[in-house]
Amino acid sequence: MEVIWDMRLNEGVEWAMHCCLTLAWLGDEEPISTARLAAGYELPPPYLNKQLQALVKAGIMTSTPGVRGGFRLAQPLAKITLLDVVMAIEGPAEAFHCTDIRERGVGAEKAAWQFRTPCAISTAMRTAEVAWRRALAAQTLADVQAVVDRRIPHQGDVIRRWYAQG
Amino acid sequence: MEVIWDMRLNEGVEWAMHCCLTLAWLGDEEPISTARLAAGYELPPPYLNKQLQALVKAGIMTSTPGVRGGFRLAQPLAKITLLDVVMAIEGPAEAFHCTDIRERGVGAEKAAWQFRTPCAISTAMRTAEVAWRRALAAQTLADVQAVVDRRIPHQGDVIRRWYAQG
Repeated sequence: MEVIWDMRLNEGVEWAMHCCLTLAWLGDEEPISTARLAAGYELPPPYLNKQLQALVKAGIMTSTPGVRGGFRLAQPLAKITLLDVVMAIEGPAEAFHCTDIRERGVGAEKAAWQFRTPCAISTAMRTAEVAWRRALAAQTLADVQAVVDRRIPHQGDVIRRWYAQG
Repeated sequence: MEVIWDMRLNEGVEWAMHCCLTLAWLGDEEPISTARLAAGYELPPPYLNKQLQALVKAGIMTSTPGVRGGFRLAQPLAKITLLDVVMAIEGPAEAFHCTDIRERGVGAEKAAWQFRTPCAISTAMRTAEVAWRRALAAQTLADVQAVVDRRIPHQGDVIRRWYAQG
């Protein structure tokens, strides 16, 4: 198995954000199934379901089992930040993973106290990670919805009509 | 070949930054080979070489062929930002890749003009990407080296001694 390192967010992040917006436009009347959300974006249902389950686990959605079951938002969009969704789908790991290569080779000869503070490269990279996370945390899905509603005023109607067709 | 979605930077980013610092500590007297840099951090030479070639391609290092060949810094550390190294190793792609799922399913019924502006999710995610890149661009490898030199004053000596043993 060849692993390709790729600094890309899982495509599930895009799917999850769109599904949250769709549930908000549909209102909270009844839960929406994976099958219908998948059809609404032409996505593979099993893989979308995996992302939706991750959102449930993170407290962003709730799920109801059964034939008429499905997903609902657990919180209003104004309470869900982009960071919440990214963390739910990607997990908490930082983009830069320090493997402390400074302790190997040349470093193996150095005294242990020299490694008590984190590697300066790791610290510098973390500064950028924090900036990224802050920018994600500063934006909620309600902000995103407001942009769409301003640009495409009938977006909610289009979605409600499509889902009403069953 | 299995592609693993993983919002992780390639481990070559860490290797590349350490190698740049090592070349700076060693001074500019002679090029350093992949084999010696790999030994200095106990890294796999072929894969490290791939990263070093990417740094050459990006204008961060120069390479000299031949038995006594190897790598030199093409620029002083103060001119190399963390973003330069990340882009050299990872390429220019953004972490969030918008696949425009808004145009599928429900969206397929909508008029084309509604998709002329970028998806609001994509725009919001880009704000965070820009914050991350700015934070990386605001830090040079000279800044990182200064932190190390302050914490571990003999770091340069240790490295020079180890490499002098040849």
